[in-house]
Amino acid sequence: MSDGVTIALDAMGGDFGPPVVVPAALRALEQDEDLRVILVGDETILRTTLAQSKAAGNDRLKVHHASQKVGMDEAPSSALRNKKDSSLRVAIDLVKTGDAGACVSAGNTGALMATARFVLKMLPGIDRPAICTSIPTMTSHTWMLDLGANIDCNAEHLLQFALMGSVLAGAVDNNHQPRIGLLNIGEEEIKGNEQVKEAARLLSGSALNYSGYAEGDDIYKGNFDVIVCDGFVGNISLKTSEGVARMIAHFIRQEFTRNLLTRLAALIAMPVLRSFRRRIDPRRYNGASLLGLRGIVIKSHGSADVLSYANAIKVAVIEARESVPERISSQLQNFHENRQAS
Amino acid sequence: MSDGVTIALDAMGGDFGPPVVVPAALRALEQDEDLRVILVGDETILRTTLAQSKAAGNDRLKVHHASQKVGMDEAPSSALRNKKDSSLRVAIDLVKTGDAGACVSAGNTGALMATARFVLKMLPGIDRPAICTSIPTMTSHTWMLDLGANIDCNAEHLLQFALMGSVLAGAVDNNHQPRIGLLNIGEEEIKGNEQVKEAARLLSGSALNYSGYAEGDDIYKGNFDVIVCDGFVGNISLKTSEGVARMIAHFIRQEFTRNLLTRLAALIAMPVLRSFRRRIDPRRYNGASLLGLRGIVIKSHGSADVLSYANAIKVAVIEARESVPERISSQLQNFHENRQAS
Repeated sequence: MSDGVTIALDAMGGDFGPPVVVPAALRALEQDEDLRVILVGDETILRTTLAQSKAAGNDRLKVHHASQKVGMDEAPSSALRNKKDSSLRVAIDLVKTGDAGACVSAGNTGALMATARFVLKMLPGIDRPAICTSIPTMTSHTWMLDLGANIDCNAEHLLQFALMGSVLAGAVDNNHQPRIGLLNIGEEEIKGNEQVKEAARLLSGSALNYSGYAEGDDIYKGNFDVIVCDGFVGNISLKTSEGVARMIAHFIRQEFTRNLLTRLAALIAMPVLRSFRRRIDPRRYNGASLLGLRGIVIKSHGSADVLSYANAIKVAVIEARESVPERISSQLQNFHENRQAS
Repeated sequence: MSDGVTIALDAMGGDFGPPVVVPAALRALEQDEDLRVILVGDETILRTTLAQSKAAGNDRLKVHHASQKVGMDEAPSSALRNKKDSSLRVAIDLVKTGDAGACVSAGNTGALMATARFVLKMLPGIDRPAICTSIPTMTSHTWMLDLGANIDCNAEHLLQFALMGSVLAGAVDNNHQPRIGLLNIGEEEIKGNEQVKEAARLLSGSALNYSGYAEGDDIYKGNFDVIVCDGFVGNISLKTSEGVARMIAHFIRQEFTRNLLTRLAALIAMPVLRSFRRRIDPRRYNGASLLGLRGIVIKSHGSADVLSYANAIKVAVIEARESVPERISSQLQNFHENRQAS
């Protein structure tokens, strides 16, 4: 039996809101008997959506009313000031009060980050939150951070990201010596920018399992368990990957629908193509962690569907069960003690 | 009939040297009757390699002896100081003297850049060279720069890159109002770093066809003809793309070789898969331009094979026929005149 855990969901967030979040919650509850869910949002809407589903009477599901909603394009500062009863804010509040072990939102990333930082505060010793997610590799998967929370990072920030990524790999994958790579470029003359070079020095002198520079193509080779970079580069690298994968899928579709013969080939190759597509299905990788906070906040893709959102809930559950923030905190303490001792 | 043009090849450069460069040169000569090639390198080795091929007597092929070779890991400064008779240096010298209209090298990128800059000098008004190449998109292709020549770029550099990329799109694709995108991230709060924001202001006020920010996944959508970024981000984005494509190819192979049934499906799908693979074959995109110099220098991938290297020669030929450096120069002049006028 797993530990009981409660997850708060910002049910109004994302491109679709309740029509996705509610069925995703029900699916997650079905798959995990020790899970409880709090749907945060407009009670009338949520009750209506629930009534339309058959599982309305699930006693592990609660609705928590919140009267406001943060717009997808709303400025974070405005959300922070004017939306104190938004579904996004209240879901985070429930983590703060301990009523929930983690929260999930598919809403406005900037507002989510600003609100989470304001309500939950940073862990001592962590300067900035980082967005982290797992992405597939040839052999398994790797944790990549930061994916867009911070544009300019100094070496110390990159070191903190490495530590947080390592804790996540330890907690989720049971990998306690994850190989850390610093994302860099390999051109001969100009190997890396100053922050990255300095971060390499810091990492080499740390107790973390630093494995050297990773170039862009190394991300997917499976030689690193954690890839560390600033949020500008990380976001572009991740979105570039999505773009390439989508283009390739498009080309495959085009080639297989070119004429009658290729359509026939497609029919025969279908099961293979389907299991291939499953392997790179981005929905399986939905759910990014906002690391470095005194609480667990998971960001779902704004356009997530039910399967995809349910996956983000799973990420929240694992992190709550594994007490990721506490682990980061204690790792950080060890880290600083070692640093002072050496 | 096309214009006659002479290309100098650093025949000793790259992972393979003459065994790739010589056959690639012969293939290029065969395909283009108005092309002349100068093979630069160790004359004995080159004559031997040529003797082994049947086309030894081609009168459009010359060998130019160079006694030295730049190592793939050699420091650019050392190459510049100590390798004045290297194949890499002499190939560039031939462009300087006008004996060749362009040169191609698969050698050490840092040394190539440093030597090209030292020998050829920058065009007036261009501060730094940029590495530019075309990459496939869903609809056609796009020109991306810088891909690794410059780590830190200010807004003015990015503007110069945009201008150079536009000229290349004009010269090669006959696209005289190419849509320019600035690579950026789309997170709500922190849209872009300072250089990118400032570059957007400069581009909006210019005569160039600036079309706004491009996120990582926009690169492959086909909405931009030129993608501008600093070399750190560009290099990581490009290599990330290669990594994703390789991983996907690996997964497809794995799925199709899983068992007898999938192998059978592979057999039937083979022609389709093959024409798909051709479309994303990186060899078709080999040959990056070092833009901003007073002469044409094309960098081939170090591990290029014959087909791939022959493609880099083609890029050199097009740029020489289209007088790309002169075009950049005159565009730049117009640009500055407009700027002062406005």
